[in-house]
Order: sequence, then C-alpha cells, then structure tokens
Amino acid sequence: MGLATIQSTMHENAASSLNELSRAVASDIEQVNKVLRQKMQSPVNLIPELAGHLIRSGGKRLRPMLTIATSKLFNYEGQRHINLAACVEFIHTATLLHDDVVDESDIRRGQESANAIWGNKPSVLVGDFLFTRAFELMVADGCHQVLRILSQAASTIVEGEIMQLLTGDDLQTPEEKYFEVIRCKTAALFSAACEVSAAICNRSPEEHEALRQYGENLGITFQLIDDMLDYSSDSLTLGKKTGDDFYEGKVTLPVIIAYEAGHEKEKQFWHRTMVEQNQQKNDFEQALKYMKKYQAFSIIQSKANHYATQAAQALEIFKDSEMKNLLQRLAFYCVHRPY
Amino acid sequence: MGLATIQSTMHENAASSLNELSRAVASDIEQVNKVLRQKMQSPVNLIPELAGHLIRSGGKRLRPMLTIATSKLFNYEGQRHINLAACVEFIHTATLLHDDVVDESDIRRGQESANAIWGNKPSVLVGDFLFTRAFELMVADGCHQVLRILSQAASTIVEGEIMQLLTGDDLQTPEEKYFEVIRCKTAALFSAACEVSAAICNRSPEEHEALRQYGENLGITFQLIDDMLDYSSDSLTLGKKTGDDFYEGKVTLPVIIAYEAGHEKEKQFWHRTMVEQNQQKNDFEQALKYMKKYQAFSIIQSKANHYATQAAQALEIFKDSEMKNLLQRLAFYCVHRPY
Repeated sequence: MGLATIQSTMHENAASSLNELSRAVASDIEQVNKVLRQKMQSPVNLIPELAGHLIRSGGKRLRPMLTIATSKLFNYEGQRHINLAACVEFIHTATLLHDDVVDESDIRRGQESANAIWGNKPSVLVGDFLFTRAFELMVADGCHQVLRILSQAASTIVEGEIMQLLTGDDLQTPEEKYFEVIRCKTAALFSAACEVSAAICNRSPEEHEALRQYGENLGITFQLIDDMLDYSSDSLTLGKKTGDDFYEGKVTLPVIIAYEAGHEKEKQFWHRTMVEQNQQKNDFEQALKYMKKYQAFSIIQSKANHYATQAAQALEIFKDSEMKNLLQRLAFYCVHRPY
Repeated sequence: MGLATIQSTMHENAASSLNELSRAVASDIEQVNKVLRQKMQSPVNLIPELAGHLIRSGGKRLRPMLTIATSKLFNYEGQRHINLAACVEFIHTATLLHDDVVDESDIRRGQESANAIWGNKPSVLVGDFLFTRAFELMVADGCHQVLRILSQAASTIVEGEIMQLLTGDDLQTPEEKYFEVIRCKTAALFSAACEVSAAICNRSPEEHEALRQYGENLGITFQLIDDMLDYSSDSLTLGKKTGDDFYEGKVTLPVIIAYEAGHEKEKQFWHRTMVEQNQQKNDFEQALKYMKKYQAFSIIQSKANHYATQAAQALEIFKDSEMKNLLQRLAFYCVHRPY
C-alpha cells in the first residue's frame, strides 16, 4: 500500500482505531493493571493510596498499550511484555507526579492532582518510589537491551522536563527547541515502549529502528495535539481544565506561532500574560483569537499529520496484519482526537 | 582477634581511621570523581551546574569509599568498582536533593542548598536526572546481581523517606519505628554499597551476607550519630546548622528518648515546639537540657557502639588485612566522630 493510500484510508478510519486497539489488547492490559496494583503495594500505606489515586484515575494507558500492541505485531506469546508495559506506565506515572509538583497543577486527568490532595512532599517521594519500582521491573526482566532502552528513555524524559522548565516561559523559544523538548519529554517514552517489543522478540536492528521511529513520531504527534487541545478542547472532554498552560504561563507551540506572527501590540499582550503572568478576565479568549488569526491550530494539525504519516510509514517494513493496520491508524487518530 | 579485643583496640585507633581509609582509596576516589563529573554532563546546562554544586561541596564520599574499600578487601583489580561507586554516590545525591525539597532545608553541607539557590522545581528534576544516571551506570555494568542489589536499595531508601515523612512529627514514634526508618533511608545504601563488591568479585553467599551486615550496621551507627550531632555538635564543624531537626519539628531519637522519659510538663514542651511548631527563643537550649537530663546522648552513643560492634564483627569471616582493620575501625570512628 503506498503512503498516499495509507493516508487517505487512515484518515477515514482513524476515529475508531483507539477503541479497536483497546479491545485487541484488553486482556493483556488487564494483566498489566494487575502488575501495577501489585507493584505499588508497600507496608507504607501512603504509597498505594497516592499511587493508586493516579493509576486508578487511569488515563488512556496509551504507552503500555503500545508495548502490548507492538509485541503482538511479532505474535509474541510470552509474558515479558506485561511487566515491561507496567514498567513503562510506572515511568510515565512517576513523571506525571513530579510534573504536577513542578507545574503546581491542581487538576490531573479530570481529578484533583495528588499534590493538591497530599501536598508536594509525598508527590515527590511517591514519584521516586514509582521510578524505583519501574527499575525493579526492568531488572526482573533481566535483558540488557531492554534495560538500556528503558533506562536511557527515563534519562531523556528527565532532560526534556528540565529543558521545558528552562524554556517554559520564553516567548522566543524557537520551534526547533519546542520540538526538542517534546521529543525528549514525551516521544522518548513512546519510542522505548515500542522498541522493547523488538528486544523481547529478538528482532533485527532495522526492526528496532522501525519501532523506535514509529514510537517517536507517534509521541510527537500526540504531544503536538495535546498542547493544542489545551487551547482548543472542550474542558469536559479533555478531562482537565482548558487553558492550564496559558494560566501557568507555559509557552507551547500555539503561543510560539501566535507570538512569532503577532504585531508589536500582540507581542506585548503575550508578554504581559505569559511572562509577567499579569492576566485579566477575557485574556484567555483574546489569546484564542490571536491563535485563530494566525491559523495556529490548523498549522499544528498539519504538522501533526506529517509526524503521523512518518509513524505509519515506519511500520511499512512489517508484513501486513490487523495489528499493523491498527497501529498505523492510531497515529492519525492522535491527530484528530477530540481529547 | 576476639570481639572484646577488637572493641578496645578499635576505640583507641578509631579517630584516625577515616583519614587512613581516605588515603588508602584516594586514587580510586579520584577516578570516581571523574566519572561523577562526566556523567552529570548534559546539553542542558542547569544539570551540571546544580548537580555540580552538590557534588563539589563534597561531603565525605563515605558511600563510594565503602564500595572501593570493600572491593579492595578482595584485592579486586578491575574497573567496575569505580562506576558502581559513582552510581552509589549519584543515588545518594539524588535523595539529598529530594530530601532538601521535602525538608525545605536551606543549608546542606555548610552551603546554601540547591533548592535555596535554584528553587524546588530544578531540585526535583535534577534529582530525577541523577537517579536515572545512577541506573544507567548500573545497566552499563550489566551484572544482574549488581542491578538487583542497587535497584532494591534505591526502592528501600525511598520507602524509608516516605516512612520518615509520615512519622516525622509524631512524638510517640516507637524506637523500633525510628530504627526501621533509618535502616531503610540510610543503612540500605551503605549495605548495597558494600555488597556490590561481593557481586563483582563473585564471592559466596556468606560473604555477600557479611558485607550486607557490615554495611547495614555501619549505616545505622552513622545515622544514629548524625541525628545526635544535630543537637550536640558545634555548627561550624558539622557544616550544617545545629538544630535543623528541632527547628523543622523532625522527631528523631534524641527527642523520642527525652519525650518518652519526660514528665507531663516536659511532654507539653515537646508538643508545643515539635508538633505545633510554636518555638520561642531559648527553646532549643531547653530541649538540650531535657535531653541531657535523660542522658539521651550517652544512650545513643551506647546504641551506636552496639551497632558498630556488630559491623566490625560481620567482617570477622574475612582474613585479616589492613583494609579489614580500617573498615572495622571506621565503624567505631562513626560512633565518636565529631561531625
């Protein structure tokens, strides 16, 4: 199937792909959830309480789903993918906990965030705990390649978070810098979540690279749209307050585009609201107007579509299968997802 | 040599043991420092800047020294102990960074703490970064036993920190609970720092156990005295403000002893100062008086001496050597150290 064909058929069928994928991996994800529940146990009650709050509130389990789905691409029949998917989710959950402390967020996945309920201190330490549990799961797997892939990903994520902390309030952040940040803080874990399947199935370096590329491009697609939805989504469906990034003065691509294209007066608006954090009633609506004026959302969707196409293309080296098709469509779903 | 003899000769010579040990491992520690400097590099400048502040300000490098010294107990001649010692120091440094955020400390090792200079957010994230670097160093070593020992230690440390957070303001903390906390938050890493040497030298399970016991008992000794020095040390020599634990309302053994033995009026004093955090001028001096009234410091030194003896005894299975003698004396040095 040529790429043009992929793209056109994918777009049409993208909407249902997440549901179909969820169904295809449901019984494995049930096992992953069981491992998550087991491994967050501790004689220290606060740990399962706080971690459980975050794990139960769920999210899409997109990252562990990727490990499960890519291992099915190779008809993997062992059990290692379950623990590794749980490991990936623990890394993700740990970074969310620390993120919320760093961002001072009070809402996460439509619920009060852990730091809002328990305070920053437990969030820092339970985040650390989940990090160490993730490492124990990798170590239990024992494969050196797996350990290398996942420990490097953890390191890269943290570098990305730090880069974001440093560039987060800089309106003049170049687009390349923004992409570097999301490549590290988001795409690295998507990429590792996929590549570990190649490791546990003893696949060739080319197949490792293909899964790495798929995951990275999917992760970039996902984060581009995530940052866009913070401005364009209905808060009820997103499950978090629309506008968080704006109210926190966190500079993401929609702002970078509007700032760069804006006149002097508009630049002053962005400076006042984002840098000085001097925000007034209706400023958020004004921000949306400027973004729409410069087509920020359609520019971002078109960029996201580019990365989704790259992701779908990376999987072309594998023989056709239902799972391959679902994973390819998932990339386009990420472009058009409503929340 | 019988234990009674060990104890009496050890006490006399303990004072010089840290200096002698430092000299004996100096060239290896130089290499460890080089690895620490290399591995804290990152294109994100803030990372080497902040981590470097903490690593340069030094501390005693006690934990990496243990890995080096115990490997020399087996005449180890490879290079793996260097990276593993660096790994141990990174785990320690990461927990210090997160500790300071949790404790809201503004002084660490006699200097302004990282969170006081850079704020909490970078401290959380750079702590995470050092954790992930520690894991990369373990993974690079590749030995499954080493990975298990160190990743479990990291997990135990964090559980200890969380226990401490939960019991930290409870005046009725039973002594056993206090010991459980320091066993986890401090002794687990001392223990792992020693046991990895048995792993890289392929020693027997008994020898693993001996080093584990040595490290654990040494760690308990160290922390008992550390908590005591927070009340009894001259602030200039300790390199941190005396009384931090008191001012932060952190309940440690000196307080537990004085509270337990105290009359109703004294209990009210501890409640007001530690729990309500309502502290007045001269309260710290009053706290010291109560501690001295119930011989808290000599009780603690005698407990510490007990653990130091256990530590020294654990090494008895090894054949006599200069290094064994230094490690045994180090345990008693920890009891009598001035800072």
